[in-house]
Formats: sequence, C-alpha cells, structure tokens
Amino acid sequence: MKHIAVVVTDYFEDSEYTEPIKAFKEKGHKITNIGFEAGKTVKGKRGESQATIDKSIDEVKVSEFDALLIPGGFSPDILRADDRFVKFVKEFVESEKPIFAICHGPQLLITANVVKGVRMTGYKSIVQDLNNAGVIFEDKSVVVDKNFVTSRTPDDLPDFIRESLNKLNY
Amino acid sequence: MKHIAVVVTDYFEDSEYTEPIKAFKEKGHKITNIGFEAGKTVKGKRGESQATIDKSIDEVKVSEFDALLIPGGFSPDILRADDRFVKFVKEFVESEKPIFAICHGPQLLITANVVKGVRMTGYKSIVQDLNNAGVIFEDKSVVVDKNFVTSRTPDDLPDFIRESLNKLNY
Repeated sequence: MKHIAVVVTDYFEDSEYTEPIKAFKEKGHKITNIGFEAGKTVKGKRGESQATIDKSIDEVKVSEFDALLIPGGFSPDILRADDRFVKFVKEFVESEKPIFAICHGPQLLITANVVKGVRMTGYKSIVQDLNNAGVIFEDKSVVVDKNFVTSRTPDDLPDFIRESLNKLNY
Repeated sequence: MKHIAVVVTDYFEDSEYTEPIKAFKEKGHKITNIGFEAGKTVKGKRGESQATIDKSIDEVKVSEFDALLIPGGFSPDILRADDRFVKFVKEFVESEKPIFAICHGPQLLITANVVKGVRMTGYKSIVQDLNNAGVIFEDKSVVVDKNFVTSRTPDDLPDFIRESLNKLNY
C-alpha cells in the first residue's frame, strides 16, 4: 500500500481526478486530497464530481507520501498562484518520488522550475509553455521519464493510469 | 472611432471583459466579440456577466480592426488550444496595431510566440511562463511596451483602461 498525495482545487477536470483515484483505491493505495482548506468541498469544472479536501497545504510534508497526483483542468493554474503548492511540488520532485501529471497538471511543474531536459507530454494549450521551460515535448498518450508520468487529455487516462500504477510498484 | 476586436470565450474574468468594453464604448469605439461560433452566448467565470459572439474566428481578418483586447480568466487558455486564434493573434502583433492583454491574456501571446524581449506584466500564475518565453517581466499595475498594454488583475483595471485608451489615440 502506497500513500498518494493529490493536489486539487475547484475547476479540476472531473475524470482526471475520479478515474485515477478509483484505480489507485482498487489497488489498495491510500489517497489524501490536499488543497487550500481541510474539510472544504471542491468541484470539477464539468459539475460531474467533487472532492473533499483532507488536509490543508499547511499541514502536509512530502515525507508523509509515496507519490503525487496532479489532475488537470484549471485547478493546477489556481494552485500555482500560491507559493505553498509550488514549494510542495518542488520538494516532491527533489525527493525523487513518482509524480503523475495529466493535461494542465504540468503547469505546476513549470512554475516549480523542475522540468528542464525532462521528456513530457501535456494538454495542447500548454505545449509552448512546456517547450519554453526546456521540456522535451512528446505528443503521445503517456510519457514516462525519470519519476514523471504525464498524459495529455481524459482520452489518455487508460495509459496514464497503467503507467502510474507501474511506477507505484517501484 | 476605432474598431476593437475582442477574443473571448467561456470562463472569462467577468470585469476584465465588462469594464474595458464599457470604457471603450463610452468613448465611441466599436466592439466586435470574436469566438468559436457567431450568435453563441459565452459566460464569465464568476457568473456575473455574459457576452454574445458577433463573429466566428473563421469570419474575421486583422485588417478589419484597429486594436485587440484579450480579457483574462480561463478564456485565453481555451482559445490558445485552437490554432485559428493563435494565428489571428500572431497576425495582429505583426500588424503592429495595439494589443491589450490582462491577467491570463498574455497566454495567447506566448503561444503565438511573439513576446521575446517585450516588457510585460500578467497574472501571478503565468509569471514563470512569461519569463521562460523571454518576456522582461515587470510586477506593475500596467506595462506599456511596443504595441502591448498589459496588466495583472481586476484591481489594475483603471490603469489598464487608461493606457489602452491612450494607445487608441495613436
């Protein structure tokens, strides 16, 4: 059993949160939703799903977790405007634990300044940002490099989940 | 009287659309809302305002307009995933006509690859993206350089509107 941190807030891409969480739980892994305020409910941008924040970003340390999930939608852009989330993500990368980021999820990695020279994919709108950040961009359903697993859209979820689960058996 | 193109879709930051539009109209300027589909109504992310799309991106040419407004919110990120909007914005910059971009508005300029060496500001979440794109970032309420007027947030609207109106008298 691994303990997976999920950084999430409003406007997350519904299925990019719900489907990996479901798959991780089915394999017996533990999930902790991390956001601005413990106990608060955050909503997906499609209005199909919600999540309860288990812990505020002020209450968590990277050492408590084995992996990090960053669902897409507009959630990552909201989180990266807050230095505490950027610091947490940066420390996660430095810990060399697995990081799963889909769609706009890599935006948080760009702001944490940890992606130079890494092979990655992401949603079309952020491709230029990834290139400018020094990412070696690949237009594939899933890219695994170093400790990063990245995908582009909800259509890529089966590949994203498969490779993320693979990483959890590291 | 100048003719101002506005590229806008759902999840725009309400006041970053409504307030400049109001100020431009009060001075007698003409506004054309450009989006995915003419006649469609798009909604602000705060649910306080909406806009009707006057023309589809397929119907417009830069030569019809004197200036371009890019309101913020999540609208610019949605638009830049569509190559037609990126091309329109790129041609606008090449025309050397004024461009007014606030908050996340500069995301469209990054994807159009037209910002290297330009002094600009923008919303906190995109600062790293602006730096990586070669922008000379300034943390000010409004930055005017070349034909660009840029601001950070709704709080900057008075300065943004004042400098945009100044540019319209070019």
